[in-house]
Parts: sequence; structure tokens; C-alpha cells
Amino acid sequence: MAILVVGSVAFDSIETPHGKRERCLGGAATHFSLAASFFTDVRVIAVVGEDFGAEHEALLTKRNIDTRGIEHLPGKSFHWSGSYVKSLNDAETLNTELNVFETFSPKIPAAYQDSEFLFLANIDPVLQANVRQQMPRVKLAFGDTMNYWITAHSENLARVLKGLDGLLINDGEAKLITHESNLMLAAKKIHAMGPKTLVIKHGEYGATAFFSDEVFGSSRKNHPFRAPALPLETVVDPTGAGDSFAGGFFGYIASQGEMTPAVVKRAMFYGGVMGSFAVERFGTERIASLTRDEIDARFSIFEELSHLE
Amino acid sequence: MAILVVGSVAFDSIETPHGKRERCLGGAATHFSLAASFFTDVRVIAVVGEDFGAEHEALLTKRNIDTRGIEHLPGKSFHWSGSYVKSLNDAETLNTELNVFETFSPKIPAAYQDSEFLFLANIDPVLQANVRQQMPRVKLAFGDTMNYWITAHSENLARVLKGLDGLLINDGEAKLITHESNLMLAAKKIHAMGPKTLVIKHGEYGATAFFSDEVFGSSRKNHPFRAPALPLETVVDPTGAGDSFAGGFFGYIASQGEMTPAVVKRAMFYGGVMGSFAVERFGTERIASLTRDEIDARFSIFEELSHLE
Repeated sequence: MAILVVGSVAFDSIETPHGKRERCLGGAATHFSLAASFFTDVRVIAVVGEDFGAEHEALLTKRNIDTRGIEHLPGKSFHWSGSYVKSLNDAETLNTELNVFETFSPKIPAAYQDSEFLFLANIDPVLQANVRQQMPRVKLAFGDTMNYWITAHSENLARVLKGLDGLLINDGEAKLITHESNLMLAAKKIHAMGPKTLVIKHGEYGATAFFSDEVFGSSRKNHPFRAPALPLETVVDPTGAGDSFAGGFFGYIASQGEMTPAVVKRAMFYGGVMGSFAVERFGTERIASLTRDEIDARFSIFEELSHLE
Repeated sequence: MAILVVGSVAFDSIETPHGKRERCLGGAATHFSLAASFFTDVRVIAVVGEDFGAEHEALLTKRNIDTRGIEHLPGKSFHWSGSYVKSLNDAETLNTELNVFETFSPKIPAAYQDSEFLFLANIDPVLQANVRQQMPRVKLAFGDTMNYWITAHSENLARVLKGLDGLLINDGEAKLITHESNLMLAAKKIHAMGPKTLVIKHGEYGATAFFSDEVFGSSRKNHPFRAPALPLETVVDPTGAGDSFAGGFFGYIASQGEMTPAVVKRAMFYGGVMGSFAVERFGTERIASLTRDEIDARFSIFEELSHLE
């Protein structure tokens, strides 16, 4: 079943211990869409400027991603500059130019209306709420956010959370939203804010899914679930790893049509798999050139990494 | 098969957000022995002072731990005071009194000589090396250490590492020993120092075992293995969690008599299980009152937490 995703399609200028890239295609919706495209149909809502050319669009359409919801406006695309030279675990933002995103008002093409899965990638919660309102009847709505919106736009974010079935964030964001350092207690607080499923990403240590009591009925099925991350000798560029995790995770759920305990567990593994590929090269380079066979082979490695037999 | 363990048997004064305990029985060898005692025979080498009474010894002998190697000297036992009030992840050491450990010279009882498994719990590497030399023919020697020995006694520690088959440490210690922030690269460096098996404990995120190429022959079997930690709502006292992990891990391996890939994977899970119990109450309270049924039930929870089917 198709996913509609709203988020940034942007240019990133990235510096890591392994080198530099100027203005490569990035943005949360881009990384999410590419990863999810290996599992299901993906439709993007975003806005770009005149610097977004046919070669950039081709990166998405080659993976059968529906780009009819990408609006083209005069001016420049969103541009993010960041550095991982000090730490591969923490992006240092050098510059953020919202450009065409400053005046963006999302319009959902008629062809997108039957999307049954909705993902609100990291972006201004006002835009997330806008898209959520335009898609009231989706089967499952998940989303992401980041520190900036949590601290400076908490009321807008609270409105978004009320409309989400699930939220994917990292440890620091979970603690920041809830003012709680224990992840089990943080999860309970977030369940109370709206999302009955919470996936907390632990970077190189994997991710944990927390479910409120109502998600799967039986309390035993609602136990947390942990998926590993793959220990890697080389992390070339962490940009987009979290969005690629989300794309693999939600893409797999959408491909199965519903969120059973078995489906969400495999989804956590596919999230880890896509995140592990994303960091192997700069920007979208690795995921854009990936094959389904490579995904399946790495899924097996994740099983060997974490399963007793 | 029996484990001989050398390490501290001590009194701990502990403060956490959940309360305070004065002079409860602790020390690395104590926590290790109690956890390992659920899996195999354990023999302790340590030194205590006149403050170590029959009631303290009974805590160990009740679990069938052989205490004939605990030397009694005039003076006071090792005493550690620490606080977890600022952070449950980092013990703040308030005071350390080595007392009888200052002049300790380990003597191994004749009844211990046939021990086939040796664990050098966290203690001065000079004492670890001394015991290793006295037990040259053990089947498997594993050990632990901590920041203080890594930074202030690195040459002594290097001599210990050369004689170890395996090392169990945490992320910070692995990075400190190797000056390497990538765990895969840190593992390679530690393999080159001696221990061909390295278990890195990630606290609430679980633990990863890294094997050098020679451990299991085939390169596929030498892939890393990750075990989860149990997400807990309440951590009463983290003291001894790492030693309890080590006791569960090495105790299970010794109970199986050899370290196959299947055995070491289950050992990682038993390590996590024992660590998860250790933190539920102060000091040794929880492990000392544990049953084998509780261990088996939690092992199943660890499987559900991490396994797809």
C-alpha cells in the first residue's frame, strides 16, 4: 500500500572525517522515500527551488517514487550545511537556509488521496499538521521531529503528536520531549501525548520500539522490542541514517498492509538495515544504488548478529 | 566446570535516587561469584578484614560458593563509597579505602588448582597477573578492568591482557584503552593486545561480543554478536551490574565446558539477564534471593525482546 510522505527535499553540504560534498541531494523526505521505495509505492509532498533540476528528480523517479507532489517555486531549495568532523554521532549545523520552505503551503495532488499510510518526516510541525488534516482517513500515520521543534515550537508539535499513531525519534529527542531520562517512562509519557507506538533510535546501538497497552491488545505482545544496529568499521556520512531507518521501517509496514507484532519486529530490522547502508557513502549515494538482494543479505546478517539460533 | 575468580570482596556505601545503603557486601568478586553460582561451581580468591563476619561469608556459602581462598587479615576490608544521584549511568566515587588489599598477596588453595576457568575481576592488574601466573593451564581465562588501571597502570594492564582469552569492559573503557572511538576498530586493537574475544557492555543498550579471526575458524562465525539489555522502569542501584553480567556470561560458558558460537551467544543473553536483576535492588540483595526459574523466565523475555519469531 502506498505511503504519502511530507518533508524536506533539500541540498546538503556535508563535511565528515572522510571528506566533503557540496550541495548533494538530501532532506528528510528524500532519504525516507529512497529507503521506503524498496518496499512499497512512495509519493512525496515537498517544495523545491529553481536549483532542483531534472537530474535531481531522476534520482527519485528512477526508484519509481511519485514526485507529482513536489512543488517548484522561484528561488532556491532548502540548503543545510553541517559537519561531523568533531563527532560522527552529532551533526554540527553550520548553516540552514529554508529558502522556498519559508512560504510553503502543502497541496496534495488528487492522485495521492488514496494513500493509506502517511509519514510526516522532520519538518516544521505546522506543515506536518497541515498535511495530517488533509489526510484524515489514512490507515496509519507516523512521524519524526527534531530538537529545534521540540524546544522552540512545542505547542505546534503537541498538536502533531495528537494525530500520530507512531513516532520515530532518537534518545536525546525522547528525553527532551518528556524531561525524563528513563526510556520506559519517557515512552509512557509520549504514548499519553498521542503516538501509541514509539520507536527510539539509539544510533550505533540499534533501536527500541515501545507500545502502549492498546496497540496489540495482549500485554505480552506489547512488550518492547529491540533491533540491533550493525557494527561498522567505517561510517562515511551519517546524514540521512535516521530517515533511511524510518523509510525501511515504515516502508516494510506499508508493504504488509498492517502493523502486527511480527510485522513491526521485521520492520525494526529493515529500518536498521537501511540505516546501515545509508552511512556507507555520502548523501543518497549508497541507497540510490542499492539492490533488493543486498537488502535481503544484510537482513540475514542482522539476524545472525542478534539471534541465538 | 569450576571457575576460579580473583577480585575484590568489599563493603560498599551507596547512594542512588532510590535511597542509601551503608557498608553492604559488595566488590567485583562478590557480584561475579553470586551471579556465576547459578550456573557452575565458583571458587573465590580475595582478602577481607576483621569487619567481614560469618553473616557476610554465609551470603556466599549459601550459594555454594567456595570461600576457602578468602584470606582474613587484621584490619578493615576494602571500602568503596559512591553516588549515582547525578546519573544512574556514572558512579561518582566519593571515597576508596583499599585497607587489607594494600598488602594482599594472593595464595591459591590446593583445592582450587584444578579450576578450568579463570576470571580476573576488576582489581589491581599486578594481582590479576599474579593469579594468572599461578594458574597457567586453565582452559579459558577472561577478565575485566576499569578506567583507573587503564590510565594510571597501563603497563601492568598490558601484561595482564597478553594472558587473557577474553576481556569484558564497557564502551568508555574500550575507547580509553585503544584511543579509538569506533568499536569495531577498538576491538581489533584489543584483539592484538591479547584477548581474542572482547565483550563490550553498552549499559542500557546491551552488549556486543567481538571475535578475532582465529576464535571460531570460519570468518562468518567470527561476526560480532549483540545481546539486548532489558528496558527497565526502575534502576534502584547499578552497582555490580557489570560484574553480574560477567558472572552470568562466564558462568554459563563454564557450565557448558567450552566456548562454541552457540554457547557464547547464550552466554551474552545470560549476562544481560543477570545484569538486569542486579540493578533491581541495592547491592547483592536481588541476586542473592534469585531462583533459577526466575532466570529462565527472564531469558525468555530477552528472546522475545530481540527475536523475530
